[in-house]
Amino acid sequence: MTRRRVRWLAERRVFEGFLTGKGPEWELKRLAMEEVAVAYDNSLAVKAGVQLLLWGNTVKALGTKRHHDEWLKATEDYKIMGCFAMTELGHGSNVRGLETVATYDARKAEFVINTPCETAQKYWIGGAANDATHAVVFTQLHMNGQNQGVHAFIVQIRDANGNVLPNIRIADCGHKIGLNGVDNGRIWFDNVRVPRENMLNSVADVTADGQYLSDIKDPDRRSAAFMSPLTSGRVTVAATAIYSAKICLSIAIRYALTRRAFSITPNGPEMLLLDYPSHQRRLLPLLAKTYAMNFAGNYLKVIYVNRTPQSIKNLHVVSSALKIAFTWHNMRTLQECREACGGQGMKTENRIGQMKGDFDPQSTYEGDNSYMTQQVSKSLLAEYAATKKQNKPFNGLGLEHLNGPSPVLPSHLTSTILRSSHFQVEAFRLRERDLLNRFAAEVEDYQAKGETKEGAFLQTYQLAQDLARAFADRMTLDTFIEVEARVSAGSLKEVLGLVRSMYAVVCMEEDASFLRYGYLSPQNDAAVRKEVAKLCSELRPHALALVNSFGIPDAFLSPISYDWIQENSWSSAKL
Amino acid sequence: MTRRRVRWLAERRVFEGFLTGKGPEWELKRLAMEEVAVAYDNSLAVKAGVQLLLWGNTVKALGTKRHHDEWLKATEDYKIMGCFAMTELGHGSNVRGLETVATYDARKAEFVINTPCETAQKYWIGGAANDATHAVVFTQLHMNGQNQGVHAFIVQIRDANGNVLPNIRIADCGHKIGLNGVDNGRIWFDNVRVPRENMLNSVADVTADGQYLSDIKDPDRRSAAFMSPLTSGRVTVAATAIYSAKICLSIAIRYALTRRAFSITPNGPEMLLLDYPSHQRRLLPLLAKTYAMNFAGNYLKVIYVNRTPQSIKNLHVVSSALKIAFTWHNMRTLQECREACGGQGMKTENRIGQMKGDFDPQSTYEGDNSYMTQQVSKSLLAEYAATKKQNKPFNGLGLEHLNGPSPVLPSHLTSTILRSSHFQVEAFRLRERDLLNRFAAEVEDYQAKGETKEGAFLQTYQLAQDLARAFADRMTLDTFIEVEARVSAGSLKEVLGLVRSMYAVVCMEEDASFLRYGYLSPQNDAAVRKEVAKLCSELRPHALALVNSFGIPDAFLSPISYDWIQENSWSSAKL
Repeated sequence: MTRRRVRWLAERRVFEGFLTGKGPEWELKRLAMEEVAVAYDNSLAVKAGVQLLLWGNTVKALGTKRHHDEWLKATEDYKIMGCFAMTELGHGSNVRGLETVATYDARKAEFVINTPCETAQKYWIGGAANDATHAVVFTQLHMNGQNQGVHAFIVQIRDANGNVLPNIRIADCGHKIGLNGVDNGRIWFDNVRVPRENMLNSVADVTADGQYLSDIKDPDRRSAAFMSPLTSGRVTVAATAIYSAKICLSIAIRYALTRRAFSITPNGPEMLLLDYPSHQRRLLPLLAKTYAMNFAGNYLKVIYVNRTPQSIKNLHVVSSALKIAFTWHNMRTLQECREACGGQGMKTENRIGQMKGDFDPQSTYEGDNSYMTQQVSKSLLAEYAATKKQNKPFNGLGLEHLNGPSPVLPSHLTSTILRSSHFQVEAFRLRERDLLNRFAAEVEDYQAKGETKEGAFLQTYQLAQDLARAFADRMTLDTFIEVEARVSAGSLKEVLGLVRSMYAVVCMEEDASFLRYGYLSPQNDAAVRKEVAKLCSELRPHALALVNSFGIPDAFLSPISYDWIQENSWSSAKL
Repeated sequence: MTRRRVRWLAERRVFEGFLTGKGPEWELKRLAMEEVAVAYDNSLAVKAGVQLLLWGNTVKALGTKRHHDEWLKATEDYKIMGCFAMTELGHGSNVRGLETVATYDARKAEFVINTPCETAQKYWIGGAANDATHAVVFTQLHMNGQNQGVHAFIVQIRDANGNVLPNIRIADCGHKIGLNGVDNGRIWFDNVRVPRENMLNSVADVTADGQYLSDIKDPDRRSAAFMSPLTSGRVTVAATAIYSAKICLSIAIRYALTRRAFSITPNGPEMLLLDYPSHQRRLLPLLAKTYAMNFAGNYLKVIYVNRTPQSIKNLHVVSSALKIAFTWHNMRTLQECREACGGQGMKTENRIGQMKGDFDPQSTYEGDNSYMTQQVSKSLLAEYAATKKQNKPFNGLGLEHLNGPSPVLPSHLTSTILRSSHFQVEAFRLRERDLLNRFAAEVEDYQAKGETKEGAFLQTYQLAQDLARAFADRMTLDTFIEVEARVSAGSLKEVLGLVRSMYAVVCMEEDASFLRYGYLSPQNDAAVRKEVAKLCSELRPHALALVNSFGIPDAFLSPISYDWIQENSWSSAKL
C-alpha cells in the first residue's frame, strides 16, 4: 500500500524539483512534504524519504555531475527506486566500523564489493526488501593493501522487473512494531562488480589505473565526509517528530474537551477532563514544548537549507541536539497522550497508539540519541577548549553569551520575574555555562588522574547528558523569543508569551540541574512549580485554539477528536 | 489462537482448584499461573484472567452459595466462559457513574436490564466480542423509584453454540495496539430479563416480592463494596508488570553482553555495550528497581491472599500504590530496553517492542494510574487525619515510623552511609513524613481559603503525586530489607546489598523532592549521583547472574538474547 501511495504521489509529480530544483526553497518544500506525509502515515514519509533523501540526496551530495545527470531526475520521477545501504548487522552508530569491503580491479576498471562475514550484511535498509532497484552502498575501500576508510558506490540490486541481480542476496528484516509500510531489508554482496564510474567521487576518487586520489588525507576525516548525508536525515527526523507531537496533542486535547469524568459536587455535572488541574499538567506543558520546538525546528530548517561548507560543523551539532530533544519529546508526548485518553488511546483507529510504534525508531535511527548526546557535549567541549586556547571570543552555536559575565539570577522569584523572557534566557544561559564549565573540569580531572581522553568521556556521561539538554533547551528558547519579537502587540503575542513562559518554567521544573547546582534555591524552585500550575490554568482557555492552529486537517485526526459517542454508536458499529 | 491456548491449558486441568480450592495457596497458584502466562504472552494471561479473576472471582466475592455451586466449578472447567461487564463507553474510573439500569419486575421475579443511551454501552469487555457465554453485569439498581446504586447480575449473553441471545447486541472494540489476542467487546442490553436469583447478593438482596435489603445503608458504601473485586485485578496487574520488566531486562542485558560498538583505543577491539558506564546507567538501576519491586510484589501477594474484612481498606491502598509504581516502571523499562537494543528493539521477534503494546493498557486499566495516584494520597491523608484526631499512634500501612521523632540525616554523606540500610530507610521515611505533612497542610490551606475538600484535592495534585510515590518507594524498600534479613551472610547477601543500595540511591537521584524540600543538600545529592555511577560498575559483573536468576526459560526470551549473528545469518533467513 505504501509503495502504491508513493507512486500515486510521484505520478502527480509531487516530487518534481526536489532533487533537480536549485535553491533552498526546494529543500524547504521537500521538508514540508515530509511533514505533511507524516500527518497521513509515517511509513509513507519514510518510504518517500528513503528515495529522495537517503538515496537521492546522497547521490547529490557525494556524487558528481555524471551521477547527478544519470540519477537525480530519474529518482524524482521514480524511474528507479533507490535505497541507502550503510548500516550493517554488526555496525550501526559506529559507521567507521563497517565491514563490507570494496576492492579495485584495474584490469577491468571495476570495483568488487563483498560481504565478508555475517555481521557485514547490510541491515535495516529501507526499500531493500521489496522495491529498490539501486543502492548507495557504503564499504571500506581497500586499495593496494591499504584501507582508505569508508566510501560509497552505486550498485544496481534489481533489474527493471524486480528480480534480484546475480551475486546479490536479499532478505526481509521481518515484522516490526511500527513502520511496517517500509520494506526494511538485508543485503549480502558476493563479488558484485560495478564500473569505476559508480564510485561517488566528490570526496575521493580512483583513477582508471588504480590511483587513489583525495584532497582529504586523513582517512578518519574522509570517513566523516561520507557521513554528512546523515545530517539531512536528522533534520527531517526532527521536523517530523514535532509534527507527530502536534497530531497526538490535537487528538488528546480535543478528547479532553469532550470527555467528562466525576463531579466534584454531590449532584453536579461531571467535569471535563481538561478542567482537572492534574490533566492540564499532563498535556499543556507538552503543548508549550511542542510550540517551542516547532519554532526551533523552523530555525533548524533554515540553517540547514542555507548551509555552507563553513557552517556544516555547527549544523551537525545543532541538528543532533535538536533531533535528540524533539524525538524524545515526541515519544514522551505520545505516551502521555495515549494514557490521557485512557482505553481510547489503545485503539488503533485513534492514531496515537499506532504512532507510538511508527515513531519509536526515531530515537535510535539517523544517530542513536543516547550516543549522540555524548557527541553533542564533546563537540561543545571542543569548541570551548579551542576558544579558550586561542583566547578569542565565542562565535557560533549561540554560545556568544559566554563572552559576557555569568548571569546572576534574582534571589527572590516572583510570578512577574518568572514570566520575563530576560530572566528565562539568563537562567538557561547560566545553566548552559555552568554545565559546560563543570563538564570541562570533570573531563580534565579524569585526564589528570591518568585516564585517556576517550576514557574520561566514558566516565562523564552524566554531565554530558545534562549539558546536551541545556544546549538544546537554550537554543529552543532563543528561537521562541525571536519569533515572538516578530509578532506585533496583541492577543496573539500575549498567548505566545504564556506558551513561552510555560516552556521555560517547565524546563526548570523538570531538570534537576537547576536545584542540584543551585541555579534555583528550593524556595525559588517552589515558585517555579507553582507557576507551572498557574500557567496551566491560564493556558486552559486557549488550549483548543492552540491545537487548532497546528492546522492538522480534520481527516487526519481520529474518532475521539470529534463526536466519539456517535462514532461508537450501534448504528456506526453496523456499518 | 489465544482461545485455543486457554482451552489447551484448561483441558490439562491447569486451572483446577483456582476457584473451588480452599486457602491462600490456591490464590498464590493462580497468581503464579498469571506470571508464567505473561512470560509467554500477555493476551493469554489476560484472557485467562478474565475467566478466573474478573468473572470467576467476582462471582465468588459478590455471589453467595447458589452462585458458587452453579458457576465456580463450571468456570474452572471452561464449561462456560465468563466476562466482566463493568466499564461503559462513558464511564471507566468513575464506576459510580455507570448508566446501565436494572429494574425489578415482582410479578415475574425478574430483573430487567437496559442500556438507556449510547454512553451506557458496555465497553472494553474482555471476552465479550467472541467467546463469553456469561457476563457479570454492573448496573444501577432502580427499585420503587429510588436508585440503590451499583449492583451486579449474572447475564447469559450467548447460547452454547456461541450465538448472541435475543435482546443483546454485541460489537468488537476494534483493533488495538496490543493485546489483540483478547476479544474486547461492547454490549447493549434491550430489556434483557434475568431471574431474581442472578443478582449477586452477598452485599445486598431483593426479595421475591421486591423488598430491597442490605446491611450497608449508605449507597456510596454499597457501591464501594461492589468494586472490591477490582483489588484482585490490581494485584495481578502489579505482579505481571514486574514479570514483564524481568523479561525485557533479561533480553536487553544479554544483548548488551554480546553486542559491541566502538573501541576507545586506536586499534583496540570494540567494547561490549554493557561496559559503557552510560549503558550501565540505562539498564542496571532499572534492574535493581525490578528486584526491589519483585520483593514488594511478593509482599503484596501475601497480604492479598491473607486478607480479612479488617485489612481490605489498607490492602486497597497498598495494591493501588504498587500497581501504579510497578506498571509505570514496567513501561519505562520496556522503552529503555527497546532503545538500548537499538534497531533490534523494533523487531517483533525480539519481544520487547511487542510487549510495549501488550502492557501499555496496564497503566490505565484496573484503575487509571493518574487518577489512583491522587486516591492513594487521599487515603493516606484520611488515615493521617483520623489518627491525629483520635490522638492515637499510627498503626498500619507501614506508617508506624510517624510515631517516632522525625529522622535527622547525616550532614555529610559518604559512600558507606549511602549504602547503609539504616540511612536509606531514614531518608525514605523523612520524605514520606514530610510530604504527608505538606500535603495535609496544603489541603487545609485551600480549605481555609474557602475551597471545598474536593476542590482542595484538585489543586494539590503535585504533592499528591509526590506522596504516592514516596509511599510506594518506602514500602518497597521496607520489603527489600526484610528479604535481605532472611538471607544468611555470604556472597548472595552482598549482591543483594548492592542491589538494594542501587534501588535506594537511584530513587533519591530521580525524585526531585529530595533536593526540593532539602532532605539532601546539593553536596549530598552530588554524592548520591556519584554513588549511582559507582554502583553501576560494581553491579556490572553480576548483571548476567542477576537476570538469569529470574529464571525465564530460554525459549521465552528472544533471538538477540543468544547468538544473534547466527539467528540473522543467510542460512537462517532461508529457513
